[in-house]
Amino acid sequence: MTEHSIGELIKELTKSSKDASRLLLNESEERINSALINMSELLLQQKEWLQNENKKDLKAGEENGLSGAMLDRLTLFDKTINSMITGLKEVAELKGSVGQIYDERTRPNGLRIYKTRVPIGVIGIIYESRPNVTVDAAAICLKSMNAVILRGGSEAFHSNTALAALFSKALENQGLPAKSVQLIPTIDRAAIEHLLRSEDDVDLIIPRGGEGLIRMVVKNSHIPVIKHYKGICHVYISANAEMEKALRIAVNSKVQRPGVCNAMETLILDSNLSQENRKQIITALLENGVTIMGDADTQALNSSIKPASEQDWEEEYLDLRLAVKTVNGMDEAIRHISRYSSHHTESIVTESAEEATEFLKLVDSSSVMHNASTRFADGGEYGMGCEIGISTDKLHSRGPMGVEDLTTYKWIVKGEGQIRE
Amino acid sequence: MTEHSIGELIKELTKSSKDASRLLLNESEERINSALINMSELLLQQKEWLQNENKKDLKAGEENGLSGAMLDRLTLFDKTINSMITGLKEVAELKGSVGQIYDERTRPNGLRIYKTRVPIGVIGIIYESRPNVTVDAAAICLKSMNAVILRGGSEAFHSNTALAALFSKALENQGLPAKSVQLIPTIDRAAIEHLLRSEDDVDLIIPRGGEGLIRMVVKNSHIPVIKHYKGICHVYISANAEMEKALRIAVNSKVQRPGVCNAMETLILDSNLSQENRKQIITALLENGVTIMGDADTQALNSSIKPASEQDWEEEYLDLRLAVKTVNGMDEAIRHISRYSSHHTESIVTESAEEATEFLKLVDSSSVMHNASTRFADGGEYGMGCEIGISTDKLHSRGPMGVEDLTTYKWIVKGEGQIRE
Repeated sequence: MTEHSIGELIKELTKSSKDASRLLLNESEERINSALINMSELLLQQKEWLQNENKKDLKAGEENGLSGAMLDRLTLFDKTINSMITGLKEVAELKGSVGQIYDERTRPNGLRIYKTRVPIGVIGIIYESRPNVTVDAAAICLKSMNAVILRGGSEAFHSNTALAALFSKALENQGLPAKSVQLIPTIDRAAIEHLLRSEDDVDLIIPRGGEGLIRMVVKNSHIPVIKHYKGICHVYISANAEMEKALRIAVNSKVQRPGVCNAMETLILDSNLSQENRKQIITALLENGVTIMGDADTQALNSSIKPASEQDWEEEYLDLRLAVKTVNGMDEAIRHISRYSSHHTESIVTESAEEATEFLKLVDSSSVMHNASTRFADGGEYGMGCEIGISTDKLHSRGPMGVEDLTTYKWIVKGEGQIRE
Repeated sequence: MTEHSIGELIKELTKSSKDASRLLLNESEERINSALINMSELLLQQKEWLQNENKKDLKAGEENGLSGAMLDRLTLFDKTINSMITGLKEVAELKGSVGQIYDERTRPNGLRIYKTRVPIGVIGIIYESRPNVTVDAAAICLKSMNAVILRGGSEAFHSNTALAALFSKALENQGLPAKSVQLIPTIDRAAIEHLLRSEDDVDLIIPRGGEGLIRMVVKNSHIPVIKHYKGICHVYISANAEMEKALRIAVNSKVQRPGVCNAMETLILDSNLSQENRKQIITALLENGVTIMGDADTQALNSSIKPASEQDWEEEYLDLRLAVKTVNGMDEAIRHISRYSSHHTESIVTESAEEATEFLKLVDSSSVMHNASTRFADGGEYGMGCEIGISTDKLHSRGPMGVEDLTTYKWIVKGEGQIRE
């Protein structure tokens, strides 16, 4: 396809998404829920076809030398499909947000004024390899009555195309606009640039993937983007910590699933902790297979600890590796966090309520925790039922984003002929 | 100053604003209120000095050939200063938002999770001629516990510098960080470009002024911008309207203050209204001095009506001029609005509750009204007490923006040592 014809293609696609989003304004959440349930049924009915389409991607992936881990992520196993089915049913059962009324007031002149939750409109999701994102992300966007434009990784193109087509079928079956879910029908990268410049028709872009993808999206987008680049999460263990909690939280935050954004990357130890206590914490981490890079005070605790460089404080290891910093009290801990945090999640372990209050107030991150593992920073764990992503931005939405985060509001003013004097 | 040294200047300035914003996290709203009251006292005490500084701008303005209207807007009359004083007292008396707790939940594992309102951080305000914006905007930003960087019009530089210096003094008098309010200390336009690229330290930009200024800001900003380009507000008069209300609302929406963004720019008449009724409405507008551009059906009502071109539907006249469109029922009215509206404010006049509900649901604007003048779309009229601007964007804040719109939230998680299984 020529650059020009890709431009035309994306223009037509985004315009038809905008039209679909306008039609959705007049639809009910019940109907959307029926479409989500219908999609879960179609996934089961069409499993064989889906897995055949998936095989085309796997075959191409093998030929292109994808790693075993990559091929694994790409595969639509029975269990992958079952998990999509469960996800769809869970989203259908969630409480929706659209139509909620809040901030009501009646003015002295009798005007009744309130805000009501409305869909954002058209949401573009740009993601990498896993085809299940196609279903999960589309489900959450639809639940909030938005139209969605999907752009997955090129290596999953056949799988994603099949899944999006099923979704359109499920929508059509319920009399809903089929184009409420659309996948960009080309793997040409120029399509992404055109999408990111469709500010007249697309209201929000959510990139999901590695930092490189996200920076590319932010740099090129004329449309608001909600994102997080990375998760450099800190746990600060105060001299007022209860050791048993400190040990559990430090180990869990690092070890339970090190490859995700809410895992701890830097541990901060109060130098007012006894050396014995600090040794205990370091030993527990080492025994769990963690490689530690530390400052001089930390290195003194165990000979296996490597020296930490400036880069270690800025590093998202996503691995069983950890930077450890020693500070003289909470003020210094907060200064370190202010400087190096990615504003994702920070936790303090302390028995002092006063110290905890101060930490929760002064640390400027999307989630701040007291006596809890950073691994809890997650839509499911926060009780949202699902998650479209995590935001470290300050506007609109911060932290784990659920169904409500894909809505905005409008002001409704009801009068009986009032005019302004 | 060289381009390089302006870059250094803005870097130092934005960094010191960020530092001030961090200090504000630990301050109380009471203290901020005291600073606002103190500022109102300083305005009175230093009135003579302020007016002398203002005279420097007026003298330069005269030499540069500013129009009488421009010089009038630039002048710090006694009444201008009194109105700033009243504004400061009103903002001090408003209920603040920071620290509010909401969306609380306790999870099955015992974690207590909630959102709390926090300041956004550092807000940049870029505006044009009126020096009173310096005080009004800084007051609202401070009330929400944000640091603010101001960049006013070059023709008001001495006045703005004096006002910002007084604000810093008022802050210092209360033991608050003086750099919470800073004015960019140069009129060089390169400073704006550097400010707009300070995404590490500045969290939000709000431009206030003409469409040209706003488009320049949006085009160059690496920082989120909240804005509206223009207000192309529509009033739709249905065949089910009560004529007395229709007449009052049409005239008030256009005539009461035509030069502002919430004035009506296009009137849409239902062709199912009797010709007599449509004539009445047109006559009332003409009698109020309005020049009307209309489609063929409208032109048939009065010989003084000029033909409307495509451009008239897209025009923000900001004057006693009006485009009038005739449609066959509400669906066509909504299609016209979808195509031409700037998503600021649209109003329907009808006695049919069903029709009103449909209009309020399907029109995708930041304010939608039933039987009320579009002129009510305003922070003061909505009961916010003050207004930092109006947003036609969809994310974060829509419509009139008050104190709460300059806050964001963070998630607080309180545990007793919970870890993730």
